[in-house]
Amino acid sequence: MSNSFGKFFKVTTFGESHGKKIGVVIDGCPSNLEINEEEINLELKKRRPNINSFVSKRDEIDNAKIISGVFDGKTTGAPICIIIENTDVISKNYDEIKDCLRPSHANYTYLKKYKIFDHRGASRASARETASRVAAGLIAKKLLKKENINIYSYLKTIGNITAKIDYNNFSYIDRSKVFCPDLSASKKMIRKLKEIKKQNDSIGSIVEFCIENVKPGIGQPIFDKLNAYLAYALMSIPAAKGFEIGDGFEAVNKKGSKRNDYFVFENNKIKTKTNNEGGILAGISNGEKIIGRVIFKPTSSINQKLETIDIKGNKKIINYQDSFRFDVCIGIRAVAVVGAMCAITLADLFLQNKIYE
Amino acid sequence: MSNSFGKFFKVTTFGESHGKKIGVVIDGCPSNLEINEEEINLELKKRRPNINSFVSKRDEIDNAKIISGVFDGKTTGAPICIIIENTDVISKNYDEIKDCLRPSHANYTYLKKYKIFDHRGASRASARETASRVAAGLIAKKLLKKENINIYSYLKTIGNITAKIDYNNFSYIDRSKVFCPDLSASKKMIRKLKEIKKQNDSIGSIVEFCIENVKPGIGQPIFDKLNAYLAYALMSIPAAKGFEIGDGFEAVNKKGSKRNDYFVFENNKIKTKTNNEGGILAGISNGEKIIGRVIFKPTSSINQKLETIDIKGNKKIINYQDSFRFDVCIGIRAVAVVGAMCAITLADLFLQNKIYE
Amino acid sequence: MSNSFGKFFKVTTFGESHGKKIGVVIDGCPSNLEINEEEINLELKKRRPNINSFVSKRDEIDNAKIISGVFDGKTTGAPICIIIENTDVISKNYDEIKDCLRPSHANYTYLKKYKIFDHRGASRASARETASRVAAGLIAKKLLKKENINIYSYLKTIGNITAKIDYNNFSYIDRSKVFCPDLSASKKMIRKLKEIKKQNDSIGSIVEFCIENVKPGIGQPIFDKLNAYLAYALMSIPAAKGFEIGDGFEAVNKKGSKRNDYFVFENNKIKTKTNNEGGILAGISNGEKIIGRVIFKPTSSINQKLETIDIKGNKKIINYQDSFRFDVCIGIRAVAVVGAMCAITLADLFLQNKIYE
Amino acid sequence: MSNSFGKFFKVTTFGESHGKKIGVVIDGCPSNLEINEEEINLELKKRRPNINSFVSKRDEIDNAKIISGVFDGKTTGAPICIIIENTDVISKNYDEIKDCLRPSHANYTYLKKYKIFDHRGASRASARETASRVAAGLIAKKLLKKENINIYSYLKTIGNITAKIDYNNFSYIDRSKVFCPDLSASKKMIRKLKEIKKQNDSIGSIVEFCIENVKPGIGQPIFDKLNAYLAYALMSIPAAKGFEIGDGFEAVNKKGSKRNDYFVFENNKIKTKTNNEGGILAGISNGEKIIGRVIFKPTSSINQKLETIDIKGNKKIINYQDSFRFDVCIGIRAVAVVGAMCAITLADLFLQNKIYE
Repeated sequence: MSNSFGKFFKVTTFGESHGKKIGVVIDGCPSNLEINEEEINLELKKRRPNINSFVSKRDEIDNAKIISGVFDGKTTGAPICIIIENTDVISKNYDEIKDCLRPSHANYTYLKKYKIFDHRGASRASARETASRVAAGLIAKKLLKKENINIYSYLKTIGNITAKIDYNNFSYIDRSKVFCPDLSASKKMIRKLKEIKKQNDSIGSIVEFCIENVKPGIGQPIFDKLNAYLAYALMSIPAAKGFEIGDGFEAVNKKGSKRNDYFVFENNKIKTKTNNEGGILAGISNGEKIIGRVIFKPTSSINQKLETIDIKGNKKIINYQDSFRFDVCIGIRAVAVVGAMCAITLADLFLQNKIYE
Repeated sequence: MSNSFGKFFKVTTFGESHGKKIGVVIDGCPSNLEINEEEINLELKKRRPNINSFVSKRDEIDNAKIISGVFDGKTTGAPICIIIENTDVISKNYDEIKDCLRPSHANYTYLKKYKIFDHRGASRASARETASRVAAGLIAKKLLKKENINIYSYLKTIGNITAKIDYNNFSYIDRSKVFCPDLSASKKMIRKLKEIKKQNDSIGSIVEFCIENVKPGIGQPIFDKLNAYLAYALMSIPAAKGFEIGDGFEAVNKKGSKRNDYFVFENNKIKTKTNNEGGILAGISNGEKIIGRVIFKPTSSINQKLETIDIKGNKKIINYQDSFRFDVCIGIRAVAVVGAMCAITLADLFLQNKIYE
Repeated sequence: MSNSFGKFFKVTTFGESHGKKIGVVIDGCPSNLEINEEEINLELKKRRPNINSFVSKRDEIDNAKIISGVFDGKTTGAPICIIIENTDVISKNYDEIKDCLRPSHANYTYLKKYKIFDHRGASRASARETASRVAAGLIAKKLLKKENINIYSYLKTIGNITAKIDYNNFSYIDRSKVFCPDLSASKKMIRKLKEIKKQNDSIGSIVEFCIENVKPGIGQPIFDKLNAYLAYALMSIPAAKGFEIGDGFEAVNKKGSKRNDYFVFENNKIKTKTNNEGGILAGISNGEKIIGRVIFKPTSSINQKLETIDIKGNKKIINYQDSFRFDVCIGIRAVAVVGAMCAITLADLFLQNKIYE
Repeated sequence: MSNSFGKFFKVTTFGESHGKKIGVVIDGCPSNLEINEEEINLELKKRRPNINSFVSKRDEIDNAKIISGVFDGKTTGAPICIIIENTDVISKNYDEIKDCLRPSHANYTYLKKYKIFDHRGASRASARETASRVAAGLIAKKLLKKENINIYSYLKTIGNITAKIDYNNFSYIDRSKVFCPDLSASKKMIRKLKEIKKQNDSIGSIVEFCIENVKPGIGQPIFDKLNAYLAYALMSIPAAKGFEIGDGFEAVNKKGSKRNDYFVFENNKIKTKTNNEGGILAGISNGEKIIGRVIFKPTSSINQKLETIDIKGNKKIINYQDSFRFDVCIGIRAVAVVGAMCAITLADLFLQNKIYE
């Protein structure tokens, strides 16, 4: 019962990496929102493998079908089910490594938990599942767009290369093959990725998000604080190892007097001089930009031979070398997923807040 | 409806900083667990202000009363309500700053959200609320203790001072006034705190947790992954700005081949050579130690005069200088809260897993 | 985790029949609603035992204390905790029957489920717990009152005596000692109760509710239909054995053509000629009065000697005869509880609907 | 967010009467349960229209496809999605009555709630949605079957004809065209239905359920009592107007001394002499058969001309007369749905109870 996220804008995903179809049910979407399959498919393209040479070569068309909840192009208030076919499944490679515990991978813990594991791909734990989230996220984004809220997500860091972000201009994101708005850093990242790829290895990365125009008051104390709920959503993305909001871990060596976001009154509006809090005070939006980050570990499955054991403890070699299809840097595709999960989280808290308006 | 955490071991807190009482209801605790008020009070002492000179001087006795759910010293399966009186409330200071927007503080966003704010202390957003969590956490810890699970939390970093942690020996935690198991670092931290205190300022810190003896299989895919659920729980603690599991943000500049936790078979047990994943694979415990961290920002309220505005935009001076009672480093008290929230999270996922055993 | 009801206006009760205190936490109540302890106590009087000679002689003062969530007489949006002391507890009688399985009573099933039972009174299963619901119900009623919604509950039937209800005038309810608005039936009911009491026996009853001024649109398909949610709420009241909405079980021998509620346009308003549906179509309010009923079984504990067994199967005699305090007709006190649960249900669905307005 | 039922065995339905597909996601089903499409389709046949001449002529093949959560014929612990195509949709008839408020039907209230209504069929409110429930119910039944639990549902009453039930023998249910185990009553019912059909009218009915071999301890106090949770589940079925457990509404005119289910010790087992409580004490199963009933109103849509109005109040005639496809007695098809919802409810509470075993 943990395949759902959200209390009001509730998203339930289903489907496995190597099954016939995956999909999502969105329950709680208000009626009369215009939605069509084209825009969902456009959004899905952003997380598609094979968009560039640094992500998995699995080439999914991601042709989403809306099968319920929409009538005459508009939502009806009924649950929206979207189905996406798996078209480019190559399962036979996985038969060879069926009995191997894959390092830093899902198959050991799933097997211990469920006493059964669909060894083809990573099954439910596969990044494939996140396509469902991106489809749902598009609907959340459209809902938020009506409130003028924009959600940007982008690659901030790969290895030791970090982009400089202009928080007032995100127009370059889509011009970068790796979704990095700093085109100069983007180039360096691509060079780095080529190098790592040549080594048949993988590398870690940081995805940042910036959410504009959220009015003060969004977020629910005590436990569904906006920052806590975002952490919950974003840390559920495969390969995420950390989350921070505002200045995050940098706050450790700061003094309160210097770090505080002081209030000022400008252009007839209450503002803060700085935004170390990342737009959130005591779990509730304060009207500033909501900014945070997620670190994604280097992909565990790499095109090398790896030593491991099987479930009985016998030594085994996993030969990932030739025919498997892996990401050099999982963060590239995660950009779309981070954006989607931010949108779902915010849509949920936004609707929740309506109760008390 | 966001004052509850957990689906199976469900904790609901209530009460304000300057109200008469605060408390907590724990619903879902199995029957026949031995509990008494003494051990709750002992746990509460750990987060008590005034335990040393670097935390708020508010001196709460924290005398918890169990008012339901326990019969003859044992839980009955009924909801457990624990009440803690507020005995050392000094509200009058707050009258003076009633109209001021307190920098990096709850009062602005609460006011925008609820159109009413109990200006005395931080009301619900006060760290006072976390006493309820610590009381509930003690019960969770006792439940987990029956499964041999130990939860350690401790101060890892203050400012630029970071402790070295021996993950096999946490016996020094309670010997340190700041709950830091590295006694040499502890001394340096105390020196640092004295210095910051003299400046009437505050400083950031990192609290780490280490959870021993969790068997493989705990955590619920897709959204209630152990890491995501911990992030949700821990980011809900006041002043938390970031969370990481395992090597966390350090993973950004690592390669997959080097970072992977390789499986080995030792002493008839499946183990991993390293523990970069922090004991969690694909959201499910793998049997290794579960290790993670939370960054706490420097306390926003400090014993200085601060410039600000009121809700209408008029300039104001907040004079926190003399009579208020603030923490120099909020992380010291947060150590107990981090431990409590880890325990609640784990208890919840542990019970959840029983369904499928 | 089943001591809570509601998703948006969420009520959690705690406390046992013979503990020191019982109480309730209401989470999700909007801010700026005026509440005081006096009006809660007034409402509690309606379900008080000892109001007349047909209910238990246990004489509880029911002096409710609001301990959180209210500031300057108004709700703040924080969880509201209300505590009620148990003042008239006589537990010693229960020691004698400690080992007996009480017929049609909670102690057998609780013991099987929890392996422990607080034998004094009925513990959590006692009608005492419903005082918490009535306190929460008063707050829900005040919230609904702002929308002009009135909730009436009253005794419709005792044994073979059924009241005639004028659905446009409920002013007589409080004039009747048994909360029956048909004062002539009320008299007959009282005669009946005297007769049953003389026999040291108990009798069944039906409580009806009528809710006025609910606008069309309240209720959530598919599973939280207004009728389903009311059934859920009302069937959770101790001793409830059945629920119906509109014409309920009478519909079995009706034909569609005759029973349908035909739409008409009167005074510029869409109305239905009849109200067999009880104000609900497809789970959603249609603007007509919402009318339904709950049957309460005759109290199982009666002032007689009863044959039974203990948990090991040994024959036992329960001597309830002299000193216990039971209700002749549990429905009298249930009137207030039915009203409270209707209010909580409606408040919850009402808030829920705001999301989509 | 109300298209889901259950907390542990969680069922989410989606799809409209005249959409391309309907379906269901089951989240929380334990792993390693054998499931195949054939047995789901067999179960679906029981609620299929056109099985006899008294139900709607819409002839759906109901060919269910499992699209996730099952690997090698066994559940994996992942969410199970089942899709059923709508193959026999005739929407054009509905265009004519598009603007009419259909008496005792969903379209008025849906329109008021959502400001949009898919007028073809009853959309989400259609009985078509219940096919999804029956598919999920089959899985719940299989899960319960492993615990030796059997769930029987059957037609008890049509109009004024009531069956005599032998609670030890349900083998005749499937021999009756109307799922009535009393074959003599079944014949009378069929005669009655023919008569009603000739009149182009519809008739009410009662469906009963009997659940065998539930051990004592199932059901969660205070609000998720087994009876309350069953009421919630069953009253969510379209056209349900009332629910009762055990002797239900008959208890109103009984005395406690006579009605109590007295405990006895027989064959080394604790039993009750009678079963007026319907197998439930204080919301928890007591080991006896769980017996209850649901009343279904006569179908509101009948093959006649009906006077009504449109949303603006203009008089209209609905001509249902010729081409529409309605049920003479909705209870016949509801038999399968009642069984399914009982199974889902019990599976949910059964898994829930495992936490505390």
